[in-house]
Amino acid sequence: MRLNKLTQYITATAALFILSETVQAQKKQEPLLITEQGSFAVGGTVKTEAGRFEVNDALNPQGQTFHGDHAYVFYQVPVKARKYPLVFLHGAGQSKKTWETTADGREGFQNIFLRRKFPVYLIDQPRRGEAGKSMVEASVKPTADEQFWFTQFRLGNYPDYFTNVQFPKDSIALEQFYRQMTPNTGAFDAVVVTAAVSSLFDKIGAGILVTHSQGGGPGWLTAIKTNKVKAVVAYEPYSGFVFPEGELPAPVKSSGLFGELKGSTIPLSEFKKLTQIPIVIYYGDNIAKEPTTIWNKDHWRSGLEMARLWAATINKHGGDATVVHLPEAGIMGNTHFPFSDLNNLQVADELSKWLKQKGLDK
Amino acid sequence: MRLNKLTQYITATAALFILSETVQAQKKQEPLLITEQGSFAVGGTVKTEAGRFEVNDALNPQGQTFHGDHAYVFYQVPVKARKYPLVFLHGAGQSKKTWETTADGREGFQNIFLRRKFPVYLIDQPRRGEAGKSMVEASVKPTADEQFWFTQFRLGNYPDYFTNVQFPKDSIALEQFYRQMTPNTGAFDAVVVTAAVSSLFDKIGAGILVTHSQGGGPGWLTAIKTNKVKAVVAYEPYSGFVFPEGELPAPVKSSGLFGELKGSTIPLSEFKKLTQIPIVIYYGDNIAKEPTTIWNKDHWRSGLEMARLWAATINKHGGDATVVHLPEAGIMGNTHFPFSDLNNLQVADELSKWLKQKGLDK
Repeated sequence: MRLNKLTQYITATAALFILSETVQAQKKQEPLLITEQGSFAVGGTVKTEAGRFEVNDALNPQGQTFHGDHAYVFYQVPVKARKYPLVFLHGAGQSKKTWETTADGREGFQNIFLRRKFPVYLIDQPRRGEAGKSMVEASVKPTADEQFWFTQFRLGNYPDYFTNVQFPKDSIALEQFYRQMTPNTGAFDAVVVTAAVSSLFDKIGAGILVTHSQGGGPGWLTAIKTNKVKAVVAYEPYSGFVFPEGELPAPVKSSGLFGELKGSTIPLSEFKKLTQIPIVIYYGDNIAKEPTTIWNKDHWRSGLEMARLWAATINKHGGDATVVHLPEAGIMGNTHFPFSDLNNLQVADELSKWLKQKGLDK
Repeated sequence: MRLNKLTQYITATAALFILSETVQAQKKQEPLLITEQGSFAVGGTVKTEAGRFEVNDALNPQGQTFHGDHAYVFYQVPVKARKYPLVFLHGAGQSKKTWETTADGREGFQNIFLRRKFPVYLIDQPRRGEAGKSMVEASVKPTADEQFWFTQFRLGNYPDYFTNVQFPKDSIALEQFYRQMTPNTGAFDAVVVTAAVSSLFDKIGAGILVTHSQGGGPGWLTAIKTNKVKAVVAYEPYSGFVFPEGELPAPVKSSGLFGELKGSTIPLSEFKKLTQIPIVIYYGDNIAKEPTTIWNKDHWRSGLEMARLWAATINKHGGDATVVHLPEAGIMGNTHFPFSDLNNLQVADELSKWLKQKGLDK
């Protein structure tokens, strides 16, 4: 027992030393050279109450407006920028924070890809974060559910971390992880998100859309809605897979807590637009290979299976969709958030390689 | 009449030319050199539901946690940074967006003071923006009230702009202005905000706190709570003025829509902490000099009067508080948002001058 403790101590000390080296290496990085940075609202709608606004009855809504359902965008353009910006759309319960500093204080994809000379646009989708003005009403309740998310997002099966997990096992990082979630100020609506993200591309021109999780669905719809999307990169999409009418696969059964996974259909003419651009989808580790009753591993198994059916359908119609299960590419231990995991530089390298292959990093 | 139109046309053209020159000048600016940038949650509390979390009953709140009431912070440190960072706290209905790009696309105080070599920390206060997880429940409703805010924030008396207003009179800027508001996801609570902002100073060390409007109250309380606040700069505070017990002035009457303005009391020992640091308060233009029934001008008259009573009390106790009514310093036309108005470089110069005077820009 004592020897065991000693071994643990030595391992922990070594790990700390390695971590400290990594942090040192990051600290010594060159400054970011930013030619332009800023923020704006984009898209959205407006309602106007009947009647006429009277300045002496100004708390009466008559004749007044409410602007909502826009996205908020923060962007940075590095010196000697590449041609296509990366436009990042977060997942459920997240904001643009998801792409910024990691839970343990390392650089996220925002900084990593700025250093790699891409203009970077970070979105708070409509009804989330700093884009909180929603056209529909919502109730926000403090619901104790974080151990569910720990498990659903595949840090492990709470309270146990997966043994190979690429997430730091200290309480400070976990607290940051929990606090980076932020609630809806109106129900999630893929059509509303798609409208705002499309408006962003209409404003900034051609670019590469990078989505996470629930952002996947609006991601495909945005690529259909505007030809300014030159490629889609999706990390762990789950819902929102669209198939041509008549080609919808059977639902994928799952013991995941959201039940079986269904696709939906769109006209073939719309679907064909997805065959005009390269698409890559990444999934992390600790996803079941076969059906299992371990619900988190099985939830993401159904997502991965549906993604493969979807990519096959794209490719059958002449498109270029690739599904990468990261462990099969030798990248182990990733959670639902590969872009902020401990090995996120390796995950970024994998993306850089793909962008280069597709000629998207000019 | 025709000659009048021609004059208007020539004036407008000249104005456009000048505006265009200003934008050009901004575009030609040097790149920002950033040694470090990132984001994190700070402060906040946690509740834990009774019972024990069971991974196979993971949607049951038993034994699960909820972390909330933290602030979200985005920070940037420029190359060759000055000693004290500027920490920016927004006002009611706003987020950190308030300090970023202006409604008409110019640089806000974020970029202006990065260029002036200050580390810049931008806060989303607890229960706002990307710090949306609130320990208390809230209902978020799309309420048509923007013409009220136009008037309350002194762009003019809707639909008329004040003739000298430092706000662009085009519909695109006004739309951006409306969309930069974002709702509470839990009721505003000065104590909760103060706790999170104090935690930020405890984390980053000594700095200068810059507040806007409703942020003023938590601003004073933060300076009382932690001696890391080396100065407070407040733009248009209204509520939250704290006086020593026994020295509370009579409420300031006002025809403003929030009625008369009251201060509140704290123990003298607490109040004395505010006499240990330099404090400056700025108010913009189109604020009444005498009581009037024009409610927006009178609302801010009461704020300005209370600020003067407050500063006099600070100074009577040996402190260093200054109230600057910008028009009296020759800076005309400012709204409730001087830091993003058309003349925000001039407003920034005024602040730089004060920081220099107080030895805060080393």
